[in-house]
Amino acid sequence: MRVAGVLQACRPMPALWVCGWVRTVRRGKDITFVALNDGSCLENLQVVLDSRMEGYAAAAHCGTGAALHVEGELVASPAAGQSWELHARRVRILGDADGDYPLQKKRHSFEYLRSIAHLRPRANTFGAVFRMRSALSFAVHSFFRERGFLYVHTPIITANDCEGAGEMFRVSTLPAEQPPMVDESIDWRQDFFGEKTGLTVSGQLQGELFATAFSDIYTFGPTFRAENSNTSRHAAEFWMIEPEMAFADLADDCVLAEDFLRYLVRFALDSCSGDLEFFDQRIEPGLIDKLEKLATADFSVMTYDEAVRRLERAPVGFEYPVAWGADLQSEHERYLTEQVVGGPLFVTDYPADIKAFYMRLNDDGRTVAAMDLLVPRVGEIIGGSQREERLVVLQEKMRKAGIDPARLDWYLDIRRWGSCPHAGFGLGFERLLMYVTGMENIRDVIPFPRTPGNARF
Amino acid sequence: MRVAGVLQACRPMPALWVCGWVRTVRRGKDITFVALNDGSCLENLQVVLDSRMEGYAAAAHCGTGAALHVEGELVASPAAGQSWELHARRVRILGDADGDYPLQKKRHSFEYLRSIAHLRPRANTFGAVFRMRSALSFAVHSFFRERGFLYVHTPIITANDCEGAGEMFRVSTLPAEQPPMVDESIDWRQDFFGEKTGLTVSGQLQGELFATAFSDIYTFGPTFRAENSNTSRHAAEFWMIEPEMAFADLADDCVLAEDFLRYLVRFALDSCSGDLEFFDQRIEPGLIDKLEKLATADFSVMTYDEAVRRLERAPVGFEYPVAWGADLQSEHERYLTEQVVGGPLFVTDYPADIKAFYMRLNDDGRTVAAMDLLVPRVGEIIGGSQREERLVVLQEKMRKAGIDPARLDWYLDIRRWGSCPHAGFGLGFERLLMYVTGMENIRDVIPFPRTPGNARF
Repeated sequence: MRVAGVLQACRPMPALWVCGWVRTVRRGKDITFVALNDGSCLENLQVVLDSRMEGYAAAAHCGTGAALHVEGELVASPAAGQSWELHARRVRILGDADGDYPLQKKRHSFEYLRSIAHLRPRANTFGAVFRMRSALSFAVHSFFRERGFLYVHTPIITANDCEGAGEMFRVSTLPAEQPPMVDESIDWRQDFFGEKTGLTVSGQLQGELFATAFSDIYTFGPTFRAENSNTSRHAAEFWMIEPEMAFADLADDCVLAEDFLRYLVRFALDSCSGDLEFFDQRIEPGLIDKLEKLATADFSVMTYDEAVRRLERAPVGFEYPVAWGADLQSEHERYLTEQVVGGPLFVTDYPADIKAFYMRLNDDGRTVAAMDLLVPRVGEIIGGSQREERLVVLQEKMRKAGIDPARLDWYLDIRRWGSCPHAGFGLGFERLLMYVTGMENIRDVIPFPRTPGNARF
Repeated sequence: MRVAGVLQACRPMPALWVCGWVRTVRRGKDITFVALNDGSCLENLQVVLDSRMEGYAAAAHCGTGAALHVEGELVASPAAGQSWELHARRVRILGDADGDYPLQKKRHSFEYLRSIAHLRPRANTFGAVFRMRSALSFAVHSFFRERGFLYVHTPIITANDCEGAGEMFRVSTLPAEQPPMVDESIDWRQDFFGEKTGLTVSGQLQGELFATAFSDIYTFGPTFRAENSNTSRHAAEFWMIEPEMAFADLADDCVLAEDFLRYLVRFALDSCSGDLEFFDQRIEPGLIDKLEKLATADFSVMTYDEAVRRLERAPVGFEYPVAWGADLQSEHERYLTEQVVGGPLFVTDYPADIKAFYMRLNDDGRTVAAMDLLVPRVGEIIGGSQREERLVVLQEKMRKAGIDPARLDWYLDIRRWGSCPHAGFGLGFERLLMYVTGMENIRDVIPFPRTPGNARF
């Protein structure tokens, strides 16, 4: 409760008022206990209604979910589990709630709660999740500001379709039923932006442009994938954090990723301890221990070559085969981080053929300066690379990837004039939240998730 | 420069290295001066190349825009206008720049610089603009976090088309040429989300949902308008800040807006003084004085009724007529804030018919509990209202506005159970930036602006 700061001051407050929503009501003959919550923290404030108070009958019959304004005295509580309680002198029911209220006091399945995403923030679990989301958003900004990184808002609507990170949503204002045609195709020149546009899959390319002006920058904004996949780890709309550093190589990139993850986990431990205890008890037993370990762990580094050798030697049966040139599957990643090194692990220098065109080609001509950060229980949580800063090499890589360099002329320009080594990475914010809260479905860490067939609320 | 912190330490650094981009080169017979900048601040670092150093010839012939790595000694500078200079011992040209570099040292028009939006952050003005954008983004988060507001990411893709704030972009993955049809209309049920979707024009409705769980929340994210208007104040994609408070009325809303604006301006004055001096000299003479005044000004309050009376009495000719029931035009707003009160002014209680359906109906039955905050030189900078929390009144207002209440059932639900007075406002982030920097075109405060015909970069 917002009054918590006052509570911690450890002195009785002769008279105060609070507002909040009723979580439970326990009615007795002479006394009624109301648990009130305003969303500022997990704990409720116990409000004591005495039958001798004015308007007792009405107040005592407020429903679960009702909004109350309570005036009273804050006194030491004789009950266990709380230091203070509010002895009401006057209660106003701002908005009552009847028996149809969909969040009656009982355990609800996460699936049911998704169907009432507009009300689920009033449930303990989702209160804790969205407080964590807010706190870690702030931690992201604090981390980068402390280090002098510039925050840049990269565009959401984009005409670039060549990053290849996934299927894109189309954005248009053309009449859908009767679009203007030319040569039997739609005439996109007549669309709002004069060309075909969609929703961004990454702010990285524009981030690179800003890095070659401000040295160190980061993005933190929504990104999109129009993939028709109904897994617990994919959403059509999610938030991504993408730092980019000029004058930096892959080693600098790993240092930044390590510092960043450690900072976020430490922030959660320090600033959200009440909610973390809840997650530890109800969602993922051992969560706090896991986070404490990560915050102090050594981060190992291993090349992809070495990782493949280790996997080939592994005395376990994998579902997917291991072979040089193939991407690592989640089971492989978890084996490496959990069994081989027993802690967070950077795998570096992946085969060029399985990575994006902008990653810097190593001198061996077959691998790129890429890294994935793997953590126990999850696998990959961060992916990054040094970028190809050599114009001719980049043009050649684009052609090999089937991308017309002329389409990304502006991206090449920063290699034409004042080119420099630079590196960055991406962290899916929801994946971080799932790691830090123990929540297992991405739909449960996004306020109003967008998935195939679902754009409600 | 990032080395600035070291410079301010006021002690010679025997040996250090810096990286940055060449702004100017002045070549002499024995000595060459290179002005180097890494984007961290407006000032350049003067690098002195002595003809006796190894590789002088190559280094002295680097072009404007080249990226350099310089090792040397930082020593007190004999030149005016700078305390320190770097005597180079060794220079590496990381990436040169030739005479085709589009940002040669001279004044360029903002219009030209928009055509090279990928390079303009390297120009002084845009370096300063985007540092301000980053700093004020952080200030937004700091302000709300200090006050216990929860940050919520409201959805970008939405199926709500009834907020009425403007034209929407359509988002779809249906085949554009041959969409599935039913009864001669497109069968949106077959689209990605199972219904027709677009890009959000405001996060307010979802913000209200979260406010009725967490009390105080705010959004800060991209919003969209598919309006084909080519003005200096409109963009198709921009960032908006929308706080929402439960248990709050219009007066609380005004207090928050005043505190917020004051905080942001104070933050700019305290944290961005170097860039502000530049804006004051080059962009808007008197800017700093204007901001200092706002930070300490009294904020006046006036009803719309009173405002109209004052305007009707005004001894000036307005282009647009003044009459009760009509919206105030920019010229009216500026007259009120500049001439009538001479400072920031809240105009409150507008006619219901010219405001959105969700604003709370006043007891007079003809006005709503809305407010616009007007500031000198700009007019409206913030708009907000107390929201209609009474279910029956809200349903009636929706019907009058032509909105089917069933389409926003979830929005009504928070009036069904635990309804409470609540209020909030919206601030267009770019409008704030224009106010604080003096820049006059919204295209010049967004990294990669989206306007009709333009989605480049």
